[in-house]
Amino acid sequence: MTVKALRVLEQCDTVVGYNTYVDLIADLLEGKEVHANGMRQEVARCLHAVELALQGRHVAVVSSGDAGVYGMAGVILEALIQRGAVKKVPVEIVPGVTAATAAAAALGAPLMHDFAVISLSDLLTPWELILKRIDHAAQSDMIIAIYNPKSQKRVQQIMEVQEHLLRYCRPDTPVGIVRNAGRAGEEKRLSTLADFTSEPIDMFTTVIIGNSQTFVHGEWLITPRGYVW
Amino acid sequence: MTVKALRVLEQCDTVVGYNTYVDLIADLLEGKEVHANGMRQEVARCLHAVELALQGRHVAVVSSGDAGVYGMAGVILEALIQRGAVKKVPVEIVPGVTAATAAAAALGAPLMHDFAVISLSDLLTPWELILKRIDHAAQSDMIIAIYNPKSQKRVQQIMEVQEHLLRYCRPDTPVGIVRNAGRAGEEKRLSTLADFTSEPIDMFTTVIIGNSQTFVHGEWLITPRGYVW
Repeated sequence: MTVKALRVLEQCDTVVGYNTYVDLIADLLEGKEVHANGMRQEVARCLHAVELALQGRHVAVVSSGDAGVYGMAGVILEALIQRGAVKKVPVEIVPGVTAATAAAAALGAPLMHDFAVISLSDLLTPWELILKRIDHAAQSDMIIAIYNPKSQKRVQQIMEVQEHLLRYCRPDTPVGIVRNAGRAGEEKRLSTLADFTSEPIDMFTTVIIGNSQTFVHGEWLITPRGYVW
Repeated sequence: MTVKALRVLEQCDTVVGYNTYVDLIADLLEGKEVHANGMRQEVARCLHAVELALQGRHVAVVSSGDAGVYGMAGVILEALIQRGAVKKVPVEIVPGVTAATAAAAALGAPLMHDFAVISLSDLLTPWELILKRIDHAAQSDMIIAIYNPKSQKRVQQIMEVQEHLLRYCRPDTPVGIVRNAGRAGEEKRLSTLADFTSEPIDMFTTVIIGNSQTFVHGEWLITPRGYVW
């Protein structure tokens, strides 16, 4: 968490968020009004936050990682537009540490070169478009940070991504897998493109696929920036 | 800055970094030994940090944004390998807020969908590879965050990128330009793919090129996540 996010949480009187994320900051919420709800209730949550703000409350909407990366930032702005409240409610987006860079830090330094951030969640995005992005990122030798690689119901997509990546990348391309990046209980594993889908992967996991230059040294995953030593 | 980074800075006794970034945190460095040097001295800086650590000092190497994104994280790990010091010096990489997400927060919520992070600095990367990545990112409709868009000597590259992007994207594709993202003196501008190169852009600027869905509403740049309202 950033110093700025901490300060904003201290100053607000009302907190709105997804249950799991609100629970993560329970110790910071004493004396505040908390509105938490479940998964797939993003739209209702943001419309509710806008109503609370229109009632004069000082509301913080919490999101995990960076609110602007597949998070609540865009949904809140769209909720304000839908509600005709853009000019009535001042909004500030507070950036954070997104899972790609939190996972990268746990693994060493895999994101030292150009990279793509791609979510495998096909709830809101056609699967063909997701695969197309995987193909193009791999064809141009970008490192790839994969968000939402798997959920309880969605287990096949990561296998299909692996099959696509193997068309362009060496089977021994290093892959890093981080669960709970930057949180309590952080776990990391190193694998290869040929093998990584046999590792435990779930919705709390971020997967980083190296590019052609990425290497493993001891416990570290490193993509060299290109300096001459 | 994250709470974790602040704590690490408090606990170290020695700070190593690029002049400009060390100056940004001058108020946190009282009583510490500071080793700052100039641009393009990254390798020397990191080897020096390793020597100081081998002498028993508790060293913090500072980097702007996120150290793992084109920053010092990889160079430090490579310096430890070169010096044969991997098992002698414990290292922790502290993730931060990278320019892409800091700039996105200033602009609204442009990174709500899959995106590529691409640096235009061709000091360490062949220009053809950079352009290839721009082409592939645009062809698969990813949002693109451009780092190092321009420097005093390197002014043509951004024009060439614009020319390439116009092959795949609408001329009115929204573009956000942020200078000093997340720092004092932050400035932002909105433009379009056809026009953005006429805006002031320098080495402290991050440029975000929207995808086919990105829109401008008032002062905000928003890429919808895809929720139905």
